[in-house]
Amino acid sequence: MGMTGERAPICEMLTAYAGSRRTAFHVPGHKQRAAWHVGNADERYQPLLEWDVTELDDTDDLHHPTGPIAEAQRLAAECFGADETRLLVGGSTAGNLAMILGTAEPGELLIVQRNAHRSIFHGLMLASARAVLLPPEIDRESGLGVIPNVQAVAKALARYPEARGVVLSSPNYYGMAGRLRPISEVCHAAGVPLLVDEAHGPHFGFHPDLPPSAMQEGADLSVQSAHKMLSALTMGAMLHMRGTIVNREAVRQALRMVQSSSPSFPLLASLDLARRQLHVEGSKAFEPALEAVRRVKEGLPDTRFRSVGPRNDSGSGVGDGFRYDPLKLVLHDAEGRLDGFRIRDGLSARGCEAEMADARYVVLAFGIGSRPEDGDALIEALRDLSADSGRSDRTPERPRPMAMDGGTADIPEPVQFRRDRGGRSESVPLERSVGRTAAEWIIPYPPGIPELYPGEKINEAILYRLAEWKKQGANIQGAEDPSLRSVRVFLAD
Amino acid sequence: MGMTGERAPICEMLTAYAGSRRTAFHVPGHKQRAAWHVGNADERYQPLLEWDVTELDDTDDLHHPTGPIAEAQRLAAECFGADETRLLVGGSTAGNLAMILGTAEPGELLIVQRNAHRSIFHGLMLASARAVLLPPEIDRESGLGVIPNVQAVAKALARYPEARGVVLSSPNYYGMAGRLRPISEVCHAAGVPLLVDEAHGPHFGFHPDLPPSAMQEGADLSVQSAHKMLSALTMGAMLHMRGTIVNREAVRQALRMVQSSSPSFPLLASLDLARRQLHVEGSKAFEPALEAVRRVKEGLPDTRFRSVGPRNDSGSGVGDGFRYDPLKLVLHDAEGRLDGFRIRDGLSARGCEAEMADARYVVLAFGIGSRPEDGDALIEALRDLSADSGRSDRTPERPRPMAMDGGTADIPEPVQFRRDRGGRSESVPLERSVGRTAAEWIIPYPPGIPELYPGEKINEAILYRLAEWKKQGANIQGAEDPSLRSVRVFLAD
Repeated sequence: MGMTGERAPICEMLTAYAGSRRTAFHVPGHKQRAAWHVGNADERYQPLLEWDVTELDDTDDLHHPTGPIAEAQRLAAECFGADETRLLVGGSTAGNLAMILGTAEPGELLIVQRNAHRSIFHGLMLASARAVLLPPEIDRESGLGVIPNVQAVAKALARYPEARGVVLSSPNYYGMAGRLRPISEVCHAAGVPLLVDEAHGPHFGFHPDLPPSAMQEGADLSVQSAHKMLSALTMGAMLHMRGTIVNREAVRQALRMVQSSSPSFPLLASLDLARRQLHVEGSKAFEPALEAVRRVKEGLPDTRFRSVGPRNDSGSGVGDGFRYDPLKLVLHDAEGRLDGFRIRDGLSARGCEAEMADARYVVLAFGIGSRPEDGDALIEALRDLSADSGRSDRTPERPRPMAMDGGTADIPEPVQFRRDRGGRSESVPLERSVGRTAAEWIIPYPPGIPELYPGEKINEAILYRLAEWKKQGANIQGAEDPSLRSVRVFLAD
Repeated sequence: MGMTGERAPICEMLTAYAGSRRTAFHVPGHKQRAAWHVGNADERYQPLLEWDVTELDDTDDLHHPTGPIAEAQRLAAECFGADETRLLVGGSTAGNLAMILGTAEPGELLIVQRNAHRSIFHGLMLASARAVLLPPEIDRESGLGVIPNVQAVAKALARYPEARGVVLSSPNYYGMAGRLRPISEVCHAAGVPLLVDEAHGPHFGFHPDLPPSAMQEGADLSVQSAHKMLSALTMGAMLHMRGTIVNREAVRQALRMVQSSSPSFPLLASLDLARRQLHVEGSKAFEPALEAVRRVKEGLPDTRFRSVGPRNDSGSGVGDGFRYDPLKLVLHDAEGRLDGFRIRDGLSARGCEAEMADARYVVLAFGIGSRPEDGDALIEALRDLSADSGRSDRTPERPRPMAMDGGTADIPEPVQFRRDRGGRSESVPLERSVGRTAAEWIIPYPPGIPELYPGEKINEAILYRLAEWKKQGANIQGAEDPSLRSVRVFLAD
């Protein structure tokens, strides 16, 4: 920490540049002048436009940094416990694509958890990689999928010694994090890297109440959305690399392919500032948000709503071997009168906007910008909703997630990923879909594990599982027909 | 035009959202509060943070838009003469990648001009496409490469009837635009789409003095960097589609793969505002910038510096069949005392920052934000530099670009693109590089046409050409060793 961590090299450069008051005969075309005349748009943008500059000799080059960007990346690596950190302007999406593209050549094999973010699947498609898709373990209390267990990973690595790496997503959207240390040890014993999509966990490891980060748990590469829980602008993310197993230059080259050759400096500066905040404030930066959550949890017993995860105040407890992010509050109606969507809508009508909802849960995301009074506002809304919630015409059942192999059964066969057939597709009745290739995602929530992804061939087993979800009236996200009467498949060649 | 064009749906939505003062329990983590305490960073960001929101029901979804983003895209399509426009947050890079990925399946063939932007080559690599790389015509006056001539395109399409499309980059970095109408006609006669990387020409077609746009010239798909010459924030770009030859859903799907799943709303709003400015102001929006250029051109005869292109005041004239963007001023020293780099440095020392320089030219980019007084500042700097330029120890010769087949000679063999070997490479002396595969770009400026790209196999002909450039002391960009004594190649398998 200390003086060096207090520096913000990109911001310092931009401040100096803006102060030099040179006349710009280079892009961007706005020349640091707003002339939009809509509402107060000019006032909103004008202060930041002076920092919306281009890559010049003194502003540095994101793809081959040697100046302030390189320095900001070194400070970020120090702060996040990496050997090398790359600032990303294309979100965790860019990092996840580069992580896959930098690790697998066409036809090479990766071990990937099935409930990964779409960008991981997109990376597999762009890489033309093969993947063994491991089902995650299901949290018994919530019915949600987390990560595959270490035995399944070890078994997959033993069966497929040609694997180039293991790709996990942790924490999940609900803030549940897997224990990565045993898995990184299994990976390293097999000589392959552990790559973690940690988009939802950029704050991990910065406070005793927060789970440790993937870097701290021995991952070789991790990708974090600094905008999700830290203070960076949306699309600001980071890719961290450690150790010598990963071919770092291959990852850097992949980033050059998938990210803009005209990166946004306000975005880069916001990453620099987000890192500086952690460097300077340390764990104190999260106290206001943790206090907000504490106030909500204290008030919950007065309402019908209960939270998933450990009951202790710090929120960092352990359930079923998982760790819970205390800054994600996952609530459900203990009396079963309101489903997740209705809780969300009820809170929205009371001025509190949630992050997401499913058939059972509503997810409330706190962040480094949350204040204790936000907790007061939420508990007030929950009390009001609890007292006056009208009647629900849907009675959400406890989720009955299908076992999906449980994480320890047989290791699935590898799948060859390729880009799909370019969108020429049709909708067919579910019962007539066997043998066809899916053109859409079918993801029941919970557990949030894709039953079908574009490019997957539909067989009898998949048809059975889809029919089961349909019978349960599951909440299907991403599907064209959420009732699952029909499914979109690619036209036959 | 009229009332509809005056609307700015994304800005209106964001203004309403910010005004609703709800408490955010969703990402981003800053919760619209800056707390960075560095210089005046908080003041710079705070006004815009209120618009840095996430994809919610009422803010819309960039990847499946149905609300304000869809409406903003419809207005953009109307404004730019497209049937469908997609707003891009990943720069023209994202648009170029999607253009290629949406058109070519692995192994399929495209006709591509050789002096395309790197993102086009990256698209070919990610698509695992084959490409016939056509050399561009060389402008006789400047020695710069523009686009292949129509005869070469017709010949290539006749020889390769399996081609899925023709990919051009126009205008080039120096503002020289090819005539696309005859080429779009040849493409359509062959039943293939014309795809244009028009990153440098988002302003084309909006003023009588500006060249027509690719859409106006019959292109099926074009990608424009709205930040380069219009008023959008850096990384703001657009992809336009017309007609029925392009598989639009395939392009949309490719965009979903390469762009962030958490797009930046301030960026999207800036695209909305940039479009609105054109819709409302029309050609008047460019008068201040054109007046700035006029003032410079009027003053040029008093200096040693001369501009490339037509001598008439409007700047829209024709030379060698090319059109010149009047908002790009390409200057050289008529007495040959200062090379392009020294002109750039001399101007920088006098408070005028240029866009780029090469061994002969300096490029000055005006934009929609340029003001007449910017022209006064530049001509004053040029006068001063002309009078007091010291002595140059390098005498730049007139460029002697090698013919590179002239654009009408034999059509080259197709190249199978694939992602490279992941960065394991070494540097070898140029004379020992035959038979090896290049791991870097070698691009002499002018003419800015790659002599070598990563993945290209070095043969005797290429070695000869590289040796010629070396002898000339050419300005090589992108190379690890710009003196061309050595070249970086991939390690043998």
